[in-house]
Amino acid sequence: MNFEIKYKDARGRVGVLKTPHGNVITPALMPVIHPGRQTLDVKKFGAEIVITNAYIIYKNKDLRIKALENGVHNLINFSGPIVTDSGSFQLSEYGDIDVSNQDIIEFQEKIGADIGTSLDIPTPPFVKRGRAEKELEITIKRAKESLNVRKDMMLNSVVQGSTYIDLRAKCAQTIGGMDFEVHPIGAVVPLMESYQYSTLLDVIMSSVDNLPDSRPRHLMGAGHPMIFAFTVALGCDLFDSAAYILYAQDDRFLMPNGTYKLENLYQMPCSCEVCCTYTPDDLRKMPKDARMKLIAQHNLNISFAEIRLIKQSISEGSLWELVEERCRVHPYLLEALRNLKKYTSKIEKYDPSNKKSAFFYTGSESLQRVEINRHLNKLKRLSISKRLLILPPSEKPYSKNISLNINNFYSNIENLNLNVLGTSDDLQVIVVDVPFAIIPLEIDEVYPLAQNESPSTLDEDAKKFVYRILMNHLNKYEEVIISADIMKMFENSLESSLKSQLKYEYKNSSLKIDLDDERKVKYIADYQFGSGSGKALFNGNINIVKSKKTGKIRHVYDNDKLIATLRASDGVLVLGKEGALRLHRYLPYPHNRVIVNEEAEPFAVEGKSIFAKFIIDCDSNIRSSEEILIVNSKDELLAFGRSILCGPEMMDFKTGQAVKTRKGGF
Amino acid sequence: MNFEIKYKDARGRVGVLKTPHGNVITPALMPVIHPGRQTLDVKKFGAEIVITNAYIIYKNKDLRIKALENGVHNLINFSGPIVTDSGSFQLSEYGDIDVSNQDIIEFQEKIGADIGTSLDIPTPPFVKRGRAEKELEITIKRAKESLNVRKDMMLNSVVQGSTYIDLRAKCAQTIGGMDFEVHPIGAVVPLMESYQYSTLLDVIMSSVDNLPDSRPRHLMGAGHPMIFAFTVALGCDLFDSAAYILYAQDDRFLMPNGTYKLENLYQMPCSCEVCCTYTPDDLRKMPKDARMKLIAQHNLNISFAEIRLIKQSISEGSLWELVEERCRVHPYLLEALRNLKKYTSKIEKYDPSNKKSAFFYTGSESLQRVEINRHLNKLKRLSISKRLLILPPSEKPYSKNISLNINNFYSNIENLNLNVLGTSDDLQVIVVDVPFAIIPLEIDEVYPLAQNESPSTLDEDAKKFVYRILMNHLNKYEEVIISADIMKMFENSLESSLKSQLKYEYKNSSLKIDLDDERKVKYIADYQFGSGSGKALFNGNINIVKSKKTGKIRHVYDNDKLIATLRASDGVLVLGKEGALRLHRYLPYPHNRVIVNEEAEPFAVEGKSIFAKFIIDCDSNIRSSEEILIVNSKDELLAFGRSILCGPEMMDFKTGQAVKTRKGGF
Repeated sequence: MNFEIKYKDARGRVGVLKTPHGNVITPALMPVIHPGRQTLDVKKFGAEIVITNAYIIYKNKDLRIKALENGVHNLINFSGPIVTDSGSFQLSEYGDIDVSNQDIIEFQEKIGADIGTSLDIPTPPFVKRGRAEKELEITIKRAKESLNVRKDMMLNSVVQGSTYIDLRAKCAQTIGGMDFEVHPIGAVVPLMESYQYSTLLDVIMSSVDNLPDSRPRHLMGAGHPMIFAFTVALGCDLFDSAAYILYAQDDRFLMPNGTYKLENLYQMPCSCEVCCTYTPDDLRKMPKDARMKLIAQHNLNISFAEIRLIKQSISEGSLWELVEERCRVHPYLLEALRNLKKYTSKIEKYDPSNKKSAFFYTGSESLQRVEINRHLNKLKRLSISKRLLILPPSEKPYSKNISLNINNFYSNIENLNLNVLGTSDDLQVIVVDVPFAIIPLEIDEVYPLAQNESPSTLDEDAKKFVYRILMNHLNKYEEVIISADIMKMFENSLESSLKSQLKYEYKNSSLKIDLDDERKVKYIADYQFGSGSGKALFNGNINIVKSKKTGKIRHVYDNDKLIATLRASDGVLVLGKEGALRLHRYLPYPHNRVIVNEEAEPFAVEGKSIFAKFIIDCDSNIRSSEEILIVNSKDELLAFGRSILCGPEMMDFKTGQAVKTRKGGF
Repeated sequence: MNFEIKYKDARGRVGVLKTPHGNVITPALMPVIHPGRQTLDVKKFGAEIVITNAYIIYKNKDLRIKALENGVHNLINFSGPIVTDSGSFQLSEYGDIDVSNQDIIEFQEKIGADIGTSLDIPTPPFVKRGRAEKELEITIKRAKESLNVRKDMMLNSVVQGSTYIDLRAKCAQTIGGMDFEVHPIGAVVPLMESYQYSTLLDVIMSSVDNLPDSRPRHLMGAGHPMIFAFTVALGCDLFDSAAYILYAQDDRFLMPNGTYKLENLYQMPCSCEVCCTYTPDDLRKMPKDARMKLIAQHNLNISFAEIRLIKQSISEGSLWELVEERCRVHPYLLEALRNLKKYTSKIEKYDPSNKKSAFFYTGSESLQRVEINRHLNKLKRLSISKRLLILPPSEKPYSKNISLNINNFYSNIENLNLNVLGTSDDLQVIVVDVPFAIIPLEIDEVYPLAQNESPSTLDEDAKKFVYRILMNHLNKYEEVIISADIMKMFENSLESSLKSQLKYEYKNSSLKIDLDDERKVKYIADYQFGSGSGKALFNGNINIVKSKKTGKIRHVYDNDKLIATLRASDGVLVLGKEGALRLHRYLPYPHNRVIVNEEAEPFAVEGKSIFAKFIIDCDSNIRSSEEILIVNSKDELLAFGRSILCGPEMMDFKTGQAVKTRKGGF
C-alpha cells in the first residue's frame, strides 16, 4: 500500500505515492528519459519522478553493463523514483521484440527500478474484437507472471483492451484484483494524437471505474498539458511523456491551450524563463540544438506549471472550473466534456460534498456538474408541503434578499389570500434559479446553493433544464403560487404551458415571508443527513443561538446540550455531541457511519483521526467532506467527524487518513 | 500621427506607437512607477513603456528639482517612453488638489514626459447625471486648454462621462475631433473592482466606437490579466496598472484565470521563474519585503506573458478563441461576453475577412461571433434557385464528403424524381451545420466555412439558432427537399413543424451531386464581391485549371488571360489582372475600391503598397484582408491588392500601410 490521498475534487486527487527512492506528490508528470542521450536535468524543472526504458538499456551492451553494475539511478543520473517501461512501446512500434516477459521483469529489478512494468501488448484503438481479446489474454497472463517473478520491486500492470470498454473494464477488474502497485492505462496515444477525446474519455472511465481507488492510475504517453486537467478530473494520477522533447525537436511549444509552432510565433506564449528571455526571432536564428533545448525547457516549465495549477485547483475545490476552461481550447475536447454527462454518477460519488471554492457557471456545460445532480437527489429528502410558493432569483442568499415588490402572481388556487402566505405552516417557498433549479428557502445558505455565480443572461440549455425540473416539481403540490417573474425568466414559449396550469392571476399583492429558525435547521438537517433527521435532531427544549454580529444561526442547543453548529462559511450543520447521539439513534445502521475495528476504538474515543486501515465497513454513500458518525462493530457510537475519503475509498485504502475526528467519547 | 497597425483581429490590433523615446508595440502594459520609491526594474520584465505620476513629482520638492534638472527619465531611471498622469487620480481619491491644469501640463513638458495628461475629472460610475455632465464639461474644457499649453509633448485626453454611454460617446467624439495623440478611458476602476464587466463593456464600446481609430486607447487603471484579452478585442491598446505591486503588497497573485491569495496557495500557479523557484511555504516564511518583491515579479511576468499571448493571438487570428476561453474565468465576465451581442455590427466591420486560424466553437457564446453574422449577410448576395436540397453535415469540406447513403428525404414536391437532382441547374444544394447554419455547397471551401470545428453534441442555443436560420431560408424556395438526418439533428420538437411543411417522404433514393466548376467560382465571386460579380468575372472562353495533385480549382482564365486564382488555403478568389479589370467594370464606384491621390498613382501602378496617407476615399464596407481595387479620383483602375485596414481605418489613419498591392498598371 504505497498510495494515500491528501486532497480531492471531482474524481481527481492529490496523493502521495511512496517509493524506495522517495515520495511523489500526484498528479505527477514523469518525463521520459532516454537512457543513452539525455541532456536536460529534468529535476531542475520540477520532475519528482521519471520514466525510462528498460528494453533500450537491456538491448544496448554498454548501457546494460553500466545499469547492472551501478543501477539505473546512476545510469540516468536521477536520484528520485524511476519507473521503467518494458519494451511494450517498441513492441507496438516495431511489431516484435526479443526479450521474454520474465527476463525483462528480472532485469528491471536487477537495475533497481522503483516501479517496473511487465511486457503487455499495447493493442491499438479500433482493432477487431478478436485481436483485442487475444492480446488482452496475453497481457493479463504476463501481468500474472510478473507477480511471481518480482521480488520487492513495485509493479505496473497496464489496462489494455483497445477501444472495447467492456474489455477495458474486465482487464481493470482482473489486474485490479491482483497485487500491483500502479495501473497504467495503455495504448491511448493514437486517440490523443487524433483528438478523439470522447473515445479517450470512455477508455479512461471504463478503466478507472474498475481499478482499485487505492492505486495511482497512469495515463500512458499523455504529455500534452491541454488534457491534464480533464483527465485528472476523471481519476488519472500520473502522466508520462516524451512530448516535451519530441515537440521541441519539431519546433513546437506545448501550451495548456494548444500547440504553437515556432514558424507561426510572433510572441513567446508563456511566462517561463525561456519565454521571458528570448524572442521567436532569437530562437529561429539559433542552431537547431540550442533552440531545441530551450523549447524543451519551455515545454517542461509549462507542463509542470499546469500540474501545479491542477494540484492547487484540487486543494481549493476549483478543479471543475479549470477543466471547463481547458476544455474550451479544442472543440473535440469540449465534445468530450459534454459526453462526461454519461459518467455523472461514477464521478459524483467521489466529488466532495463541500468545497472551499464557489461554483462558477462557465457555460451550458456547467449544467452537467455533479453538484447539481447531487442537489436534485438530496432535494428528495425534504418533506413536501401542501402549497408551493415560487419566487424569482435575487441576490444570494435569497432569504436575505427577497424582494417585497413582487406584484404579480399566478396560481391554481381560486380564492388565494396572499397575505396569509407569510405565516402559513403548510407552505413551501422555493426560489427558481440557474443552475440549481429549485432552492427551498430554508436551505438557501447551504453549500453550494449560496456559493455559486452564473451570468444573468441565460442560455437555452439553462432555461430548458430549470424549466424541466420546475415542471416536475410542480406536480408534487396541490396548490401552486408562482411569481410572474418566473414566466418572464423563461420567455413566452414557456409562459403558455405554465399559464394553462395556473389560471388565476393576482396583482399588487404584498408579501411577507417569515422563515422560522427551527424549521430552517430541520430542513438543513434533512437535506444533509436524510429525511426525518431534522425532527430527530432538533426536539426537546430547542434553543437557537444567533450571531450578534450577523444575525445568523450559530448553535442549536437542547437546554445546555449542543446539538449542532451551523457553519457560517457554508451553511452546513456540524454536529455537537448531543447531535451525534441523536443522529446515531435515528439513522439505521450503517447509514452515515464508519465502522472501525477494535484496535482503533481507543483512538476514536480520544478524538484522534481515523486511518483507513482501521475501517472494517462503512456507508458506501458517504461522500468526502461530510459530517459522519464513527462506530464499532456493535454499532456503539465512538466519535464523530468529517470524512476525508468517500465510502468506496474508505473500504479500498489501507493507508492515510479517512476521517478527521471532531470529538470522541460518549 | 504616431500610431499604425501591424495585425488585426476582432476589434483588437497590434500596433506601433511612436514616441520621442522609442516605439512601443501595442497592446502594451504600462507598469505604474512611483517616482519616489520604485525598487523593481520593470524593463527587465518586458515593460517597453511606463507611467508615472507628475503630480507626486510636482508636490515633492526633492523630486521636482531632480526632475526639472535631469528629466523624468533620469528620475525614474527608465530610458523608454514615459507617460505621466496629471493628478486626476489624487483628485478622485482625495477630492481636491492644488495645481492648475495649465501648470501641470507645462510641468510635464518641462520634465520631458513623452505623453502628458491634462487634469481631467474622473467621474465615478453611477453618479447623478447632472454631476456627470458638469464634470465632463470641465474635463473637456481642460483638454482643450492643454492643447494650447503643450508645445511638442504628446497628449492624452481622457474619455469621461461616468456610466452614461451617451456622455461617453459625446466626450469621445469631442476630444476625438481635437489634436490629441492618445485617449485613455477613465474612471473605470470601480467597475473592475466590483466585477461589473457588462457595464465596463458599455463604457468601453461607447468610448472606442466614437474615438478615432488612428489613436491608441488606454484602459486606465486596468492591470488584471483576466480582462486583457476581452478588452483588447473591444479595441483597447494600452493598460496601466499598479496592480502588480498593490496585489503583491496584499500577498495576492495575479493570473489570467483570477487571483490567488498566498494563504490559500498549495502550489505556485504559473511557469514563471518565481513560481518555478519557490514554494508557497518558502514565500510564507520570508520577510514581508522580500516576499512582496517576488510576488510583484510573478505579477509582472504573468501580466506581460498574457499581453504577449494576446499579440500572438491577434497575429494568427485566434483572439476570439482566447477571449472566449478567458471569459469563462468569472461568470460576470461570461455575462459581459454574452452582452457583446449588442455590439456585433460595431465589431464586425473591424474583424478581418480572412484569418490564419480556424474558427473554434467554444460554447453557445460562439454563435454570437461576428464571422457568423457576416456569413449570413453575405449569403444574401447569392442567387436563389427554384428548388432547394438540404443535406446534413459531413466532414469538411462538405462537397468532398457527401454521403451517398442518404436514404430518407422529405419534400413539398409531390412527384419528385430524385435521380434528376444531380444535374438540374435550377437546384441549390446546401448543408445545414453548426455554427454557420446554411452552407451552399458551391462556397463550402471558402474561409471560414471549411476552416471551423465544433462539438458534434449540440447545445440548445445552437439548435435553436440553426433552426431559425433554416426556417427563414426555406421560405425563399418554391420547392424544398430535405434529408431526414436534419430532422434528427433538431430532434422531435422541430421535426413536427418541418414535417408539416414537407409532407412527402421518399425512401432509399440514391443521390449524385455534380458540382459544376464554373457555377462554383461564380458563386464564390458573388459571395466575396457581391451579387452578379461571378457572371461579370467569368464570361468569355472560360478555362478552369485544376491542381493535378489535389484536383482542386486553381486558376480561371479567359483564353490565356488570368481572371482569378482560387487560393487553396482558404478558398478565396485572388484577382488576376483581367479579373481586376472586369470587376472594376462591373462594380459601381466606390464599391470595393480604394481611391488614392495623384501623388500615390505612380507607386500604385508600380505595384507598391498603398500607405494610408495617400487614400482620399474608399468603400467604407471594405474589411481587412479582402481583395480590393485601387483607383484614382477619376476611377481609373491603377492596381489591385489585399486590404490591410478596413474602410473606416483607411480614412482615419495617416500612417502605415493600408493596402498590400498585388499588381499595378493597366
